[in-house]
Amino acid sequence: MYRPEIRVLDCTIRDGGLANDSHFTLGTVRAVYQACCEAGVDYVELGYRNAREMFDPAKFGPWRFCDEQDLRAATDGIDRRDTKIAIMMDAHKCDPADILPADESVVDMIRVATYVKDIDKAIAVENAAHQRGYETTINVMAISIESDWELDPALEQIEKETHATAVYVVDSFGALYSEQVDYFIQKYQRLMPSRQVGVHTHNNQQLAFANTIEGIIKGANFVDGTVHGLGRGSGNCPLELLLGFLKNPKFDIRPILDCAAHTISPMQKDIAWGYMVPYMITGILNQHPRAAISILKSDARNGYRAFYDRMLELVE
Amino acid sequence: MYRPEIRVLDCTIRDGGLANDSHFTLGTVRAVYQACCEAGVDYVELGYRNAREMFDPAKFGPWRFCDEQDLRAATDGIDRRDTKIAIMMDAHKCDPADILPADESVVDMIRVATYVKDIDKAIAVENAAHQRGYETTINVMAISIESDWELDPALEQIEKETHATAVYVVDSFGALYSEQVDYFIQKYQRLMPSRQVGVHTHNNQQLAFANTIEGIIKGANFVDGTVHGLGRGSGNCPLELLLGFLKNPKFDIRPILDCAAHTISPMQKDIAWGYMVPYMITGILNQHPRAAISILKSDARNGYRAFYDRMLELVE
Repeated sequence: MYRPEIRVLDCTIRDGGLANDSHFTLGTVRAVYQACCEAGVDYVELGYRNAREMFDPAKFGPWRFCDEQDLRAATDGIDRRDTKIAIMMDAHKCDPADILPADESVVDMIRVATYVKDIDKAIAVENAAHQRGYETTINVMAISIESDWELDPALEQIEKETHATAVYVVDSFGALYSEQVDYFIQKYQRLMPSRQVGVHTHNNQQLAFANTIEGIIKGANFVDGTVHGLGRGSGNCPLELLLGFLKNPKFDIRPILDCAAHTISPMQKDIAWGYMVPYMITGILNQHPRAAISILKSDARNGYRAFYDRMLELVE
Repeated sequence: MYRPEIRVLDCTIRDGGLANDSHFTLGTVRAVYQACCEAGVDYVELGYRNAREMFDPAKFGPWRFCDEQDLRAATDGIDRRDTKIAIMMDAHKCDPADILPADESVVDMIRVATYVKDIDKAIAVENAAHQRGYETTINVMAISIESDWELDPALEQIEKETHATAVYVVDSFGALYSEQVDYFIQKYQRLMPSRQVGVHTHNNQQLAFANTIEGIIKGANFVDGTVHGLGRGSGNCPLELLLGFLKNPKFDIRPILDCAAHTISPMQKDIAWGYMVPYMITGILNQHPRAAISILKSDARNGYRAFYDRMLELVE
């Protein structure tokens, strides 16, 4: 009844790091990693390996850089079972020289995040990671604002020039409806017939889980979630919902429930994430959430109508 | 590009009343009504007209009974434009004698909520309402736990014995996935070809809005929402998301944004609604949320795993 090809990736620490500049305690990272291993999650992404030239280490925590010794500190002594370790590199903000040979690293998979305009950088990073022995994916961000005449040749280039296992539809703005998820998945399948399709969603319109299911129905086999939906702004597809939906008996929701209760939920006193009207507004208008983040930190945080009218001016 | 047949019903006061025993101030009800009129919402449901024998007026507020003078106080002096007024009657908890002739009431539509087991009571209430001049719907609650061999003849009976404009798929437990929404809508269309299909969802699994869209794609023309998703437990499909999605230019999201900011959001200090793991657990296990409501009021509110295991015992 279930589709054994489906792979679940937890990106709580990586994507959640956009909400706290990657300042998780070592204890939090170990708790998330252990819960994912016990739950049978296929991959757990422990952060970004981005360049210190792009991110000030005085401002950002260790999970923005994922030095090898930090990854080892986060994972040593935990029974990893079948769970693999992933890190993400931003094509335009990383240094491919930071990729160690795979046999010197605990990392199994490198995910390269990119905008379409940076596709050549992304392919160079992917090629470097593949040559050094890693499984790879390419994650095409902000897909809702890309034009077909730029996206299509980029996807054809990925098909020809990389070894990426999966290529992701990344709905960075939480703007897609199910019919648009279908559209992109069909395009990916047509232009990259040798690759798996991945889906990574944001929850601005409360569609992160629904669009992930829609992706699965249409054939996507790589799906992302975060514990309790932790993530910047409205957050991500909640991992516990995804495991509640999937029927593969290898998954166990219980360790994720414990992690949600004891590790992630308590962070709500410091990080606000979840459904908020300003994020909904940037979602329906297909805009980056930065303006919503900004207004929510201001005295105008309840001025929903004025914010809507101001955002409309950007798109009209 | 849009489907003019789609009708949007706001049930903020009616369904939200399950979260506060229908104790809204008159000012709140007037604000919601006015916002819906200005937004072009087709129907606004101002409460239940249930029997005082079933609900103690010392415990429940006026919007559990919707006496005619209270409805007039809530709506007098507001320009209703094209917005119609609805009330709900629970088939097994109302007295059909409480239905005034329509020309003596501000109410346009009576929605009869029922479980399949009470379908004969529901038909009697619907018939009485129709005879007294009202537009009607029948809302089949807890559809996710009904068996086809009971549901199908009930739907055939509705088709034969009532004048209901629309018959609703009501996902009381927030348990349905999109494929199940499809299943019920197709069944409704097959067994009740002369009726519109309605969709009313709950947000336990963050699927209320998504399942409403799915319903629309499959042909449902009556859809429900509440401002900011206000409702018992995880709440309902947020009306602002629905209006952001629908393309009919008669709708204006702005008054709903104002109502969310100034009338509904401030209630969050008294009423907890939205995504919470215990409600997610009753949703994925297709159970009434009462156990989740109960645990969230107790010291064990963070014992997600223990709650999951206890709920599993009920279904295994």
